[in-house]
Amino acid sequence: MHVAVKKLNSEQENFAAALMTLLNRDQTTEFGIDETVAEVIATVRHRGDAALYLYTRKFDGFDAEARGLEVPRFRLMQALDAIPPKQRDALQYAVDRVTAYHQKQNQQSWSYTEADGTQLGQKITPMQRVGLYVPGGKATYPSSVIMNAVPAKVAGVKELIMVSPTPGGEFNDMVLAAAVLAGVDRVFRVGGAQAIAALAYGTETIPAVDKITGPGNIYVATAKKQVFGKVGIDMIAGPSEVLVIADESVDPDWVAMDLFAQAEHDEIAQSILLTQSELVAERVQQSINRLLPTMERAEIIQQSLKGNGALIVAESRDKLIAIADEIAAEHLEVFTEDADQLAQEITNAGAIFIGPYSAESLGDYCAGPNHVLPTSGTARFSSPLGVYDFQKRTSMIKVSRQGAQSIGENASILARGESLTAHARSAEYRLDDAGANDRVELSKGK
Amino acid sequence: MHVAVKKLNSEQENFAAALMTLLNRDQTTEFGIDETVAEVIATVRHRGDAALYLYTRKFDGFDAEARGLEVPRFRLMQALDAIPPKQRDALQYAVDRVTAYHQKQNQQSWSYTEADGTQLGQKITPMQRVGLYVPGGKATYPSSVIMNAVPAKVAGVKELIMVSPTPGGEFNDMVLAAAVLAGVDRVFRVGGAQAIAALAYGTETIPAVDKITGPGNIYVATAKKQVFGKVGIDMIAGPSEVLVIADESVDPDWVAMDLFAQAEHDEIAQSILLTQSELVAERVQQSINRLLPTMERAEIIQQSLKGNGALIVAESRDKLIAIADEIAAEHLEVFTEDADQLAQEITNAGAIFIGPYSAESLGDYCAGPNHVLPTSGTARFSSPLGVYDFQKRTSMIKVSRQGAQSIGENASILARGESLTAHARSAEYRLDDAGANDRVELSKGK
Repeated sequence: MHVAVKKLNSEQENFAAALMTLLNRDQTTEFGIDETVAEVIATVRHRGDAALYLYTRKFDGFDAEARGLEVPRFRLMQALDAIPPKQRDALQYAVDRVTAYHQKQNQQSWSYTEADGTQLGQKITPMQRVGLYVPGGKATYPSSVIMNAVPAKVAGVKELIMVSPTPGGEFNDMVLAAAVLAGVDRVFRVGGAQAIAALAYGTETIPAVDKITGPGNIYVATAKKQVFGKVGIDMIAGPSEVLVIADESVDPDWVAMDLFAQAEHDEIAQSILLTQSELVAERVQQSINRLLPTMERAEIIQQSLKGNGALIVAESRDKLIAIADEIAAEHLEVFTEDADQLAQEITNAGAIFIGPYSAESLGDYCAGPNHVLPTSGTARFSSPLGVYDFQKRTSMIKVSRQGAQSIGENASILARGESLTAHARSAEYRLDDAGANDRVELSKGK
Repeated sequence: MHVAVKKLNSEQENFAAALMTLLNRDQTTEFGIDETVAEVIATVRHRGDAALYLYTRKFDGFDAEARGLEVPRFRLMQALDAIPPKQRDALQYAVDRVTAYHQKQNQQSWSYTEADGTQLGQKITPMQRVGLYVPGGKATYPSSVIMNAVPAKVAGVKELIMVSPTPGGEFNDMVLAAAVLAGVDRVFRVGGAQAIAALAYGTETIPAVDKITGPGNIYVATAKKQVFGKVGIDMIAGPSEVLVIADESVDPDWVAMDLFAQAEHDEIAQSILLTQSELVAERVQQSINRLLPTMERAEIIQQSLKGNGALIVAESRDKLIAIADEIAAEHLEVFTEDADQLAQEITNAGAIFIGPYSAESLGDYCAGPNHVLPTSGTARFSSPLGVYDFQKRTSMIKVSRQGAQSIGENASILARGESLTAHARSAEYRLDDAGANDRVELSKGK
């Protein structure tokens, strides 16, 4: 079993176009899904729990009306006992490290007072209630529960609600255990667009939330888009990607295995090596071929590397940096002698893993930073999931009587420039010098 | 000319439902717009500048091919001279105050080192290039240019590009002057969905950006939604709203004028008074009736107050706070004896104006904080436009060899729990104890 990974060189004639084709970031929309999802949402809004019972019977094959939508607290605690102690300890280890990192993201309210007594500031408050979607079936990842739940709890969210589809009503114990350890408050057995609708609008049993986060299939993603505005949502994740920048200082087997770790997710995952050395590209290709047959998920890895993988040789350090910024990878591993320096110079990436001991898989589970990262080049303008995604800011403005004189006068000039005269007069009311405005005239009417 | 504003009382039987009806936050989508906009975007992607010339000829009635899409620098500087000095000074005053406030929002990169040498951090970098949409026609607001441009420049955005539709190719001088003073780098005469498409995908003349902000009509808003993912966008703004909380300590004329200032924007704007006092509600209603005939935009104000205005009496302080948090107003004015305390207790609002000198109109122009605020109740989960909207975060992870031992071991356990064995083996490669993993076996193959 082999796979010849596509090779590109920064000096080849059509490099820019070839890179664009490789990244293939045009979203395709499947027709019909929008309508189906809109109908599910309307039904849940209209019929509440009754709709959830119906969909759960149909899609998950269990009777939530008889058995209950909510997973009782004792069942959550049972899950903690049901998993092997080694796994429980590893989950706790991850929760602890992820919590420690995210606590550094906590933002403080601030304010300042100007010479005339005017106070300006920014108040930070947590969202009241947040919903966390956890996919069921083959992609049931306890690490995803931790990465979504911990920043919300660190932010101070009062109630964190988890929803997940459960075939036959049965939950994966490791997922439930992760939920308990990460601080999830309530868990409901419902998935799909119907779960998103329930979180957005509320039903008799499931309370409406302020924001919904967490990954899901195309129906879940479409439902999140449709309820956006009623509630907040996180980014819609695209295929997962890794870009590994390597030189001769790193074992090519390590690079190959890290490319595999990304590729094993699914056929649409993308693993790219970027190097200034033809020799490194060749050695990594050799490691890929030697190690591939030893992998449990060799088929998926082969498909992913064949379809979306690439070995890119950059002819200069500047080119290498420009290509990395263009790719704006979700995960960027920098395994070079000058890794610290390179990591500073590259500005577009969700997370940068610096030096050969910083395998992406450590970050996926328990290094501390979040594993929910901007995909498909969106690292150009967006950020990892964090505490800031569960807090909101409010501007605080307390203008003193003295401060109102200069601010009010200028506001009045600008408002009249925009022909918004009620704005102008509202500002002029606050001026002491009644002669300069229409206060006197208006007061006569009293 | 009078208007009887709707009255609600927190104790009336159907209060919750009446409040929901008043807020009327269900988005309606107009059919056909999605398809029209999708076609415009596809045409601009495919034909570039040629498409922009076509649309500009059609919609703005000027020949951008002959006269140029870009506004030359000298024309921008001319605008500064063309406006009255008093207006220029007021614009500069606004730029200075808005800059001073937004500088406090600048975030710093941080990192920390653990006992075993592992370094974790978060790098903050500005976006490279940002597009600012400025509506043309009647809603041409220089203040909007300042409020969008300043946070981008404070964030460190390298190139800020403004686009705006110009009837006959002619710009409003005050808008151009605001652009110059606020630090806009380049200005293009193109609007509508075609301008959004150009900013998202780039044309021969207009460079592609990383994020697009600024208000626009339904075509612009729809185009922003459709290009989201390729580029970042800001929130899609709904109708503007003010909630005024007042007691007997404030002049009811001031309250009435502040309600007018919101209502004069357009018929769909919303102005609500919330008070614990029947008397205050009555007095404000009287002020409304007395002042309304004196207003330049009386017709619009009357329509807005009649359709969407309300005077709400809350029967207790707790009820008042709960109602304010439920409304989650874009602008909240708190004009009560205990304004400071109330402003702390209310958590959902875009901006809080504390005390009678803090008229919203001061904040609209030059108090310092941003006037782009979350509308339609989205203050429950989102924030004013700020410097943070033009920066992105990157997680930085540098695991030491010693740190890789415990992190790697736990990552391996969790990865195997998720059946992701390439992840596990990638982590195990980093362990010193080769016996605990498959390193030895794999090395034999070399």
